[in-house]
Amino acid sequence: MTSLEISSSASTRRRNCCYSPLVEDSAFESSRKDMDEVEEKSKEVINVTTEKLPVDEVPQLVISALCGAVSLFVGTTRNNFEGEKVISLEYEAYLPMAENEVKKICSDIRQKWPVKHIAVFHGLGLVPGSEANIISAVSSAHRAASLEAVSYATDTLKAKVPIWKEEIYEESSSWKGNIECFGASNNEPLSF
Amino acid sequence: MTSLEISSSASTRRRNCCYSPLVEDSAFESSRKDMDEVEEKSKEVINVTTEKLPVDEVPQLVISALCGAVSLFVGTTRNNFEGEKVISLEYEAYLPMAENEVKKICSDIRQKWPVKHIAVFHGLGLVPGSEANIISAVSSAHRAASLEAVSYATDTLKAKVPIWKEEIYEESSSWKGNIECFGASNNEPLSF
Repeated sequence: MTSLEISSSASTRRRNCCYSPLVEDSAFESSRKDMDEVEEKSKEVINVTTEKLPVDEVPQLVISALCGAVSLFVGTTRNNFEGEKVISLEYEAYLPMAENEVKKICSDIRQKWPVKHIAVFHGLGLVPGSEANIISAVSSAHRAASLEAVSYATDTLKAKVPIWKEEIYEESSSWKGNIECFGASNNEPLSF
Repeated sequence: MTSLEISSSASTRRRNCCYSPLVEDSAFESSRKDMDEVEEKSKEVINVTTEKLPVDEVPQLVISALCGAVSLFVGTTRNNFEGEKVISLEYEAYLPMAENEVKKICSDIRQKWPVKHIAVFHGLGLVPGSEANIISAVSSAHRAASLEAVSYATDTLKAKVPIWKEEIYEESSSWKGNIECFGASNNEPLSF
């Protein structure tokens, strides 16, 4: 089973991950003098995965000795949508395109803000209630850059990354795309 | 030793905590129908403490089945300030006033945004490099509220809460207050 194969069974909770996190060093240009003898390289951790997202571990992925700020956003599956009880969400993506769009978001962030490390996770497959379906995290020397970058990352993930979701209710389900993605007008936005 | 007694020794890493987290239910007025049979009460977790801040645990404190969004800010001790190598930071607070100001921030947030749970942690005593000295976390149904509330919480903590810090360099140290707090003009701002 590849990471593109999404189970259509609502009874299947999550599959084992077959997609390793993409960790890349970045040619981060710091305007500050590095206080460490060994330069701490900037990194990007990108993971679009069927594994349960590691909410508790993500802050440590981006904390840097050079930085005073880490900002984090976690999208979680909420148990309701327009008065209906939601049991879980199921996400499906065209993985190569999704990865490329996330990489582009990381590149855009580095153009706009002096940030150090970036982590972006998106869940695929079934994501039950209260569980994370998206995480974006950024570290920076001062807080404004990481706060703005995380907000931008989340907005842009929603607008640009080709990921669809199915809301699974108690007795029915509904597939939804991203209203901003591909200019579709009849799709509803992701709810995080 | 009370929680107001701050060690002046840079060799003392952190003291045992003698201040329990303040967890309060809030009269959160939700405009949405609660999907759960049992109402999930809104809560506030406030902790100004000499214990190591639980970065990895805070997201779970605010995640709610009713919400699709959690935003988090973590201020960390960075290893440099204006070209000097910083070994650690030491924070001192007038605890009753600090607690009251944090409670007021939580109350203000609920006036401004429809949020569910709020957690605010601030470290006291020595905080070594790369360790968290502040955490603010908020959950909400949709992302804009929690992102804006976390930014507001962090800005307002800096502006209003009477906490001072000492930057401990390799061969010297420097006490600093909050430039916005009490209208002091000769103090430098906290660096997160």
